[in-house]
Amino acid sequence: MPLDFTVDATDGAARRGRLTTAHGVVDTPAFMPVGTAATVKGMLPSSVKATGAGILLGNTYHLMLRPGAERIEKLGGLHAFMGWDGPILTDSGGYQVMSLTELRKLDESGVRFRSHIDGSYHTLTPESSIDIQHKLDANITMAFDECTPFPVTPEVAAESMRLSMRWAERSRNAFKPRDGYGLFGIVQGGVFDDLRRESAAALKAIGFDGYAVGGLAVGEGQAEMLRVLDVTVPELPEDRPRYLMGVGKPDDLVKAVQRGVDMFDCVLPTRSGRTSQAFTRRGQVNLRNARHADDPRPLDEHCACPACDGFSRAYLQHLVKAGEMLGAMLLTWHNLHYYQELMAGLRAAIEAGGLEDFAGAFAEAQAQGDIPPL
Amino acid sequence: MPLDFTVDATDGAARRGRLTTAHGVVDTPAFMPVGTAATVKGMLPSSVKATGAGILLGNTYHLMLRPGAERIEKLGGLHAFMGWDGPILTDSGGYQVMSLTELRKLDESGVRFRSHIDGSYHTLTPESSIDIQHKLDANITMAFDECTPFPVTPEVAAESMRLSMRWAERSRNAFKPRDGYGLFGIVQGGVFDDLRRESAAALKAIGFDGYAVGGLAVGEGQAEMLRVLDVTVPELPEDRPRYLMGVGKPDDLVKAVQRGVDMFDCVLPTRSGRTSQAFTRRGQVNLRNARHADDPRPLDEHCACPACDGFSRAYLQHLVKAGEMLGAMLLTWHNLHYYQELMAGLRAAIEAGGLEDFAGAFAEAQAQGDIPPL
Repeated sequence: MPLDFTVDATDGAARRGRLTTAHGVVDTPAFMPVGTAATVKGMLPSSVKATGAGILLGNTYHLMLRPGAERIEKLGGLHAFMGWDGPILTDSGGYQVMSLTELRKLDESGVRFRSHIDGSYHTLTPESSIDIQHKLDANITMAFDECTPFPVTPEVAAESMRLSMRWAERSRNAFKPRDGYGLFGIVQGGVFDDLRRESAAALKAIGFDGYAVGGLAVGEGQAEMLRVLDVTVPELPEDRPRYLMGVGKPDDLVKAVQRGVDMFDCVLPTRSGRTSQAFTRRGQVNLRNARHADDPRPLDEHCACPACDGFSRAYLQHLVKAGEMLGAMLLTWHNLHYYQELMAGLRAAIEAGGLEDFAGAFAEAQAQGDIPPL
Repeated sequence: MPLDFTVDATDGAARRGRLTTAHGVVDTPAFMPVGTAATVKGMLPSSVKATGAGILLGNTYHLMLRPGAERIEKLGGLHAFMGWDGPILTDSGGYQVMSLTELRKLDESGVRFRSHIDGSYHTLTPESSIDIQHKLDANITMAFDECTPFPVTPEVAAESMRLSMRWAERSRNAFKPRDGYGLFGIVQGGVFDDLRRESAAALKAIGFDGYAVGGLAVGEGQAEMLRVLDVTVPELPEDRPRYLMGVGKPDDLVKAVQRGVDMFDCVLPTRSGRTSQAFTRRGQVNLRNARHADDPRPLDEHCACPACDGFSRAYLQHLVKAGEMLGAMLLTWHNLHYYQELMAGLRAAIEAGGLEDFAGAFAEAQAQGDIPPL
């Protein structure tokens, strides 16, 4: 079995599942912290694990350029290289390459692009992307696709989606099945319902171990994203995990879980942690705000992360204003801890059949906003 | 008793002691990691403790400017503010202010200077420095002094030292004695034996809870530094701790301990950790060197720090080349771990009466250099 996936409980469209990989079981719905360059920025792998994360995402584009897939393979794969013994999903490199608008050239075979590090030329094709992800030893390999830009005409979106579907088939053919490893296809089609349905049907016809929804969170807004999910998710096989790529804010996660999404990744908790932004039960908190300068209270008195357990808002503000590494480290840790706690709450709510109440209480607390100043 | 200090064992001039503060006991010889801006850069306080550090150094100059001594006092002092419940020593601000050559004006009363952060004007006098250190709740307060530049004429060195001695007396008068808190005087006099003796005598006449040797490691070289120690240390009271300020490399520490120094601080292990330099049993290792790119071995197979336990040299090189925070975090941790292990080794050697053998084996391993490439 490539990747065993069982759904233990459902609540409406939401599912409480378990995805079994060669490196362990992932409890879903799951949020995957992003470890772009073989490290979740500012975190030891043991600290990432302590937040409750069960699976990480690695980036093919970054790793192929530095330190190189062959090097990582020789060093025992990405797990050994970065000291993370749990499951790893790698993206295909497609999304990063597409964002190099000035530096890339795309045709039917794949994409030729220049490295942002040293300007050297490289090519990614479905076959080479799958090969690189194999060398990295990714438990979950993503099919190579073109991430359709936004906004875009239906004609361009259709052309791009159909290219991605041809690449999906080539990805499937290039992938070497192994126990505990799998390949996910990616539904594209922009915000156009018929294209999303066509894409989902094409992927199902090829057959994948999981199905991702790509091309969202690119500027279309939450309402449009949720509408696309409403159209797309029912088209996906019930017995396979569903992964919403690059999403999102806590509120996005709750609403996507309610629509049957099982997996997420996003740089938001880590990137925000490096820019003084904290996610909490009561919404976002900007630690640079002067109101925290003399505040002896923790960021969130109910949070057990190292940032909240033993440090004041005043100290966190001092760290971020002084540009101290520890500020980024603590806020990253807090944000990842909060995201994982949210996912654990969602899983428990689905098990208990109380997802609607959970989502209501979540929205109410978020709307309440941060604690008032002293 | 301001600060109880007992010498439990000696080996030649070296001493194995215990310094009791209101925040715990410091085993000497001790190395104090530098926590400039209320954080040891890149380290959680719990991680600093895990390296074996028993006391930290904080910087009056940085903290008075940001976040401000009054703010830290209101928040419960530096221990509570930074989440470090062990002893803390603060410098007087004199050394940092002196390095602002373009921005300061010195007279008998003290120093007027401009903040490097926002250009605002501030004044430090012996009285205000002691007051700030009191507000910070430093267990060990340093007398306010002028760090004599190097190289310098004997006349200038004498004038500077005598000013520092007048300031030392004003510092003593300004200091409020409390149980478990103490004030250290600082011997100045550059590389001039008679001035060092005159300075030590002046401080002894005033009477301090500990005696620091300042104005070294400013470019005079190790031989000259050790010569000044040979002249100065015998002039200091035997029943009080001796602190060599701003020193140094591992080899400097061993040789200064052999000359009877009890305490050290230096930015070297932390700063080097942020610039890809590791201190090991077998000397310094530059992780940027291409020889490490494919090396699966740990930095030091005998080291139990997180950088050496679970990561390869290849991975550490990747992190530092990619500019990843984790590289600086791991190397800082390793360096502090190594420094503390060295101090523990020195303490055990003094207890066992084997310091000379220890120093010989240390020098031999350092001279051996890094492990050969695979």
